[in-house]
Amino acid sequence: MVRFFDRAKLPYICTPLTGKTTTQLLEQLDSILEKEPDMIEWRADFFEHLHNEEDVFSIIKTIKEKTMIPLLFTIRSIHEGGETIPLTETEKVSLLCNICKETNVDLIDYETSNDRKDVEQVVEAAKKHDKQIVLSFHHFEHTPSEEELIERAKNAAKFHADIIKLAVMPEEKEDVFRLLEVTRILDDMFEQPIITMSMGELGALSRINGWVYGSVLTFAVGIEQSAPGQIAIEPLREAILKTKQLMPNW
Amino acid sequence: MVRFFDRAKLPYICTPLTGKTTTQLLEQLDSILEKEPDMIEWRADFFEHLHNEEDVFSIIKTIKEKTMIPLLFTIRSIHEGGETIPLTETEKVSLLCNICKETNVDLIDYETSNDRKDVEQVVEAAKKHDKQIVLSFHHFEHTPSEEELIERAKNAAKFHADIIKLAVMPEEKEDVFRLLEVTRILDDMFEQPIITMSMGELGALSRINGWVYGSVLTFAVGIEQSAPGQIAIEPLREAILKTKQLMPNW
Repeated sequence: MVRFFDRAKLPYICTPLTGKTTTQLLEQLDSILEKEPDMIEWRADFFEHLHNEEDVFSIIKTIKEKTMIPLLFTIRSIHEGGETIPLTETEKVSLLCNICKETNVDLIDYETSNDRKDVEQVVEAAKKHDKQIVLSFHHFEHTPSEEELIERAKNAAKFHADIIKLAVMPEEKEDVFRLLEVTRILDDMFEQPIITMSMGELGALSRINGWVYGSVLTFAVGIEQSAPGQIAIEPLREAILKTKQLMPNW
Repeated sequence: MVRFFDRAKLPYICTPLTGKTTTQLLEQLDSILEKEPDMIEWRADFFEHLHNEEDVFSIIKTIKEKTMIPLLFTIRSIHEGGETIPLTETEKVSLLCNICKETNVDLIDYETSNDRKDVEQVVEAAKKHDKQIVLSFHHFEHTPSEEELIERAKNAAKFHADIIKLAVMPEEKEDVFRLLEVTRILDDMFEQPIITMSMGELGALSRINGWVYGSVLTFAVGIEQSAPGQIAIEPLREAILKTKQLMPNW
């Protein structure tokens, strides 16, 4: 199940691709590869030709030919912080399922807040074609209560998520501490890997130290932020490594 | 009140002097000064001539002539992790009071678990001679409950501590998280600066990140550990600075 995450190597660092065009995406890819992330997320909601399935397949193929680094494909919903896209939800679900079928992408992200049937369809396609499914929940206004966050994670698990992701916005330091505490609880509660983050500048602590509480992956800027508060990969990796080397058996 | 701690500069790093002889102490001092700690603690329970008051005064004088770095004077009780010393408790209290009176040491440490009258006497001498009094509690076996830790801190505050210090031993990760949570609570609860640490290898997180939760000072090894789990000053400072630069407005 835990295909990409070796506990000894936590946290994995994922950098997003946010290009609008094929040219921009491939330029970003070259720069990002130099920085040796552990995962690449193509945030395809930024891509202008998302309606052209062949273009999307072709870009995934090119990325997978260029690198062995696991590739996560995401069309972030506008309701959860994504860009406006030229697809209906039905077309989006169809695209996600076809990507599972036709490409060798490694992971697919979809939000649990979507229509139940859509979530089930995407999960089914992912399982059928041996892709890992990240089921995510984002809140860009505040940090829900501990109970609600746990409920959101349980919901992702009910849909058979391979990886559970929660990204929320802190309004005060207390919210960052709560998110970290919830991370610890979820890491105990579920077999699935957990990815959490507290966004914005205030949430930086969670991007650096979330792994201590059990978050397997942290997002870092390669070229361009895909969410508020993302830190550049180099200083983030340095802060994590300097901390980790003082906690050898954590 | 908060004389040594500028919030923007947290955490302060304190390195202990643990020499048995005057020669050893002054050699340690020279090495430690190169590493530019923010505070120096003379752990005088390691010193073989503690019964010779003039020797003790003279060493403090020498240290204070060599550096402006604030000096904390501590005779750690054997019941709280200290060395065997050639003084009765009454003689120790007398020495502490005389140090307050006769030297320009900056801070004095004494454990709240000592006899109430002894604590009151040391506090009175410190206040009278304008020294900061650190009232401390250590547990080298386990991490007490949240309630007990808060009670220990309240006890220090009742004795009019200028600085409240709690150092405890974790048996599992949960204990480290609890100590950090208590730190946050105490930092909200008291005007006095709080110093906390979770000791041993498992507690390293608290030595690196305690400042995030409100601990104003972290102990680091200059030459020789004075408590289990202390990290060398250079890598500790580096981990803290790399983290802090990503959390500019925390």
